[in-house]
Amino acid sequence: MAQGTKSISSPVRIGICAPSTPFAQEAADRVSALAARTHPLAELLFDDQCFFVSGHFAGTDEQRTDSFVALANDPNIDAIWFARGGYGAARIADVAVGRLNEAARAKTYVGYSDAGNLLGTLYRAGLGKVVHGPMPSDIARPNGELAVSRALDWMVDGQQSVLEPGMAAGEKYAAFNLMTLAMMTGTKLMPDLRDHILIVEEISEYLYAFDRAMFHLCSNLATHGLKGIKLGAVGDVPENDRPFGESPEEITQRWCKINSIAYLGRAAIGHDVDNRIVPFGRLGP
Amino acid sequence: MAQGTKSISSPVRIGICAPSTPFAQEAADRVSALAARTHPLAELLFDDQCFFVSGHFAGTDEQRTDSFVALANDPNIDAIWFARGGYGAARIADVAVGRLNEAARAKTYVGYSDAGNLLGTLYRAGLGKVVHGPMPSDIARPNGELAVSRALDWMVDGQQSVLEPGMAAGEKYAAFNLMTLAMMTGTKLMPDLRDHILIVEEISEYLYAFDRAMFHLCSNLATHGLKGIKLGAVGDVPENDRPFGESPEEITQRWCKINSIAYLGRAAIGHDVDNRIVPFGRLGP
Repeated sequence: MAQGTKSISSPVRIGICAPSTPFAQEAADRVSALAARTHPLAELLFDDQCFFVSGHFAGTDEQRTDSFVALANDPNIDAIWFARGGYGAARIADVAVGRLNEAARAKTYVGYSDAGNLLGTLYRAGLGKVVHGPMPSDIARPNGELAVSRALDWMVDGQQSVLEPGMAAGEKYAAFNLMTLAMMTGTKLMPDLRDHILIVEEISEYLYAFDRAMFHLCSNLATHGLKGIKLGAVGDVPENDRPFGESPEEITQRWCKINSIAYLGRAAIGHDVDNRIVPFGRLGP
Repeated sequence: MAQGTKSISSPVRIGICAPSTPFAQEAADRVSALAARTHPLAELLFDDQCFFVSGHFAGTDEQRTDSFVALANDPNIDAIWFARGGYGAARIADVAVGRLNEAARAKTYVGYSDAGNLLGTLYRAGLGKVVHGPMPSDIARPNGELAVSRALDWMVDGQQSVLEPGMAAGEKYAAFNLMTLAMMTGTKLMPDLRDHILIVEEISEYLYAFDRAMFHLCSNLATHGLKGIKLGAVGDVPENDRPFGESPEEITQRWCKINSIAYLGRAAIGHDVDNRIVPFGRLGP
């Protein structure tokens, strides 16, 4: 693993799988070329499964599970990078994490959006170093190299400058897509977030659906002892036939207040190139 | 109240409010005209609040709460009919039901879709006769009079022929929109569904979102002692860029199996004119 456990010249082997939807070979080639140029110590290993297609998914549930488990259990791999989100990780997370071995404990796991299902399940199990951060799929965004490089900066060099800028040493953190986390509450995938500052972001949801998901999440977390909630980006909100009447921040503040959860302001995560790194758990000094 | 408690010639006074989104005066006029023609004993009382507009909602949270509470607590009103769904009832259900009095206990409450938030909260509180069935807004559908009349058949005459045809005397039932119920789990709105046959329907959701909501619901209900799940209509599924790979019924069967919930087949509820009546609780002989 990168953060201080290897000498400066050791390669960092990064296994890449797609627990949700299929990735494209051409995008993988762009990410590999970028890494070769900016992070020569990074050795990117795109599993063939990234390019499988089975209906909505990057291969069957079994294929996606097997790929993740094989990479995570491989002692010669340092980090697991989830290729992209979409939907599908919720279908495999419980079974997949149940099959992990000791080698999987030493790894860093990086992703966001639907990959949050695996991040949460790993964190619940106390397995590995779980990190909310950009994915290879971000290469498709305008200036997407910035996001992709940031994840490499963390995995290869453990650069502190890529952390979400509002994070404070000594505090515990977790970060999720709102809808993804809302659907994890009450399931075997939901981690214990007691004493954590929870950062949530959202993308492509109507504000009424954002309100509904925030109602659900805050109601479920009301008695869970959160330190508070911070709001990341809320992007690409579809236009409805009339304005909702409240901003995403006002919605978040209202549901926090109703459920006696501290609202702690904004944070720089989201489905965009500014998506910063949030390692789960207590932030070191 | 209609079902056998009044003489045949007594008017049935039906209070109509909009706990979610605004109704249109013209549609209300059509429903009133239909009722006058087909159910002369029905006295429809559209509260002005049905036509209020406050951003996304039919008035502020306070206005929607006050309208519902005033109608429900009025001893001269026999039934409450929710005008339409949309989104908004989750924001008022807990507070509104907490303000109900003894007069509210004797009433029938009819609606579906987002109104399920109130149906569930009422049922949780053991308040009134809770019924999943068509709403005034169904008048806008082709042949919508069929749906609207069905709700009146139940409220005015207690006609057994309008019940969901697969219902069996002695069994306990509840019926909800899938996404609405998924977002109620773990909140103060969620009723106890032990020993119930739960019927769910869905509208206008991508199949991946249907799968995700079914994962969430079935995972949350796995240990709640359901008798089983029946699937209503799954309508207006948006086209994705590729086929999902499973039908709504296959998705339901899979999540039921994983969570050891009995899958009991299809049922005739949904966002369509075939939406039948499902009174919550044990069905009498």
